[in-house]
Amino acid sequence: MEAGSSTQDQAVEVSGNGVCPHFHAAIELIGKRWTGAILCSLTEGPLRFGELTRAISGLSDRLLSQRLRELEDEGLVEREVEPGTPVRVTYALTEKGADLRPAIEELKQWANRWQRSG
Amino acid sequence: MEAGSSTQDQAVEVSGNGVCPHFHAAIELIGKRWTGAILCSLTEGPLRFGELTRAISGLSDRLLSQRLRELEDEGLVEREVEPGTPVRVTYALTEKGADLRPAIEELKQWANRWQRSG
Repeated sequence: MEAGSSTQDQAVEVSGNGVCPHFHAAIELIGKRWTGAILCSLTEGPLRFGELTRAISGLSDRLLSQRLRELEDEGLVEREVEPGTPVRVTYALTEKGADLRPAIEELKQWANRWQRSG
Repeated sequence: MEAGSSTQDQAVEVSGNGVCPHFHAAIELIGKRWTGAILCSLTEGPLRFGELTRAISGLSDRLLSQRLRELEDEGLVEREVEPGTPVRVTYALTEKGADLRPAIEELKQWANRWQRSG
């Protein structure tokens, strides 16, 4: 964790002068390392673990597992197991996760307008 | 920095399957700890350092300085010095920073819809 993590518990106390505490919590949730990329991938539809790994280069299996678990805990992603041989496991956005699409789309558009050289 | 930071240089290489590398870079920029709250505060208009400190409880002066410098380096925030006694320094969004408003607004709305209990 970077400097400032010791004040993490205070993150939701941001207030006053127009700063929205819910916004702060939300941006730090979806801005967490790799989380945005995972959510962005899943906006296209459900994916299997291996498909996510291939979609996001540089992301290790271990960290992908951890992030998916966090996103499940936050109610943004759901893990679906289809019985069979072999078992097929897919990850999909929940209603709450899918509702992030407009925000993701706006940020994508901003990024494309300003970071072409990125 | 958290686990995975060693792959930071690969962050902009995310590709394939609909994942947008520019989006990934953008979300990790504005999702950095406290950065979202600072940008959100400045969407209301220019603020002085002390006003930012008061607007965002839990954020130290040292870390606010660091984040403002990073945001200047990224071209999202500009520091304006008005001569006088005492000198008046304000921080304002640049055109690039102000262009984040629609994305911030969408995320605010999402946060208010889903995280009222947050």
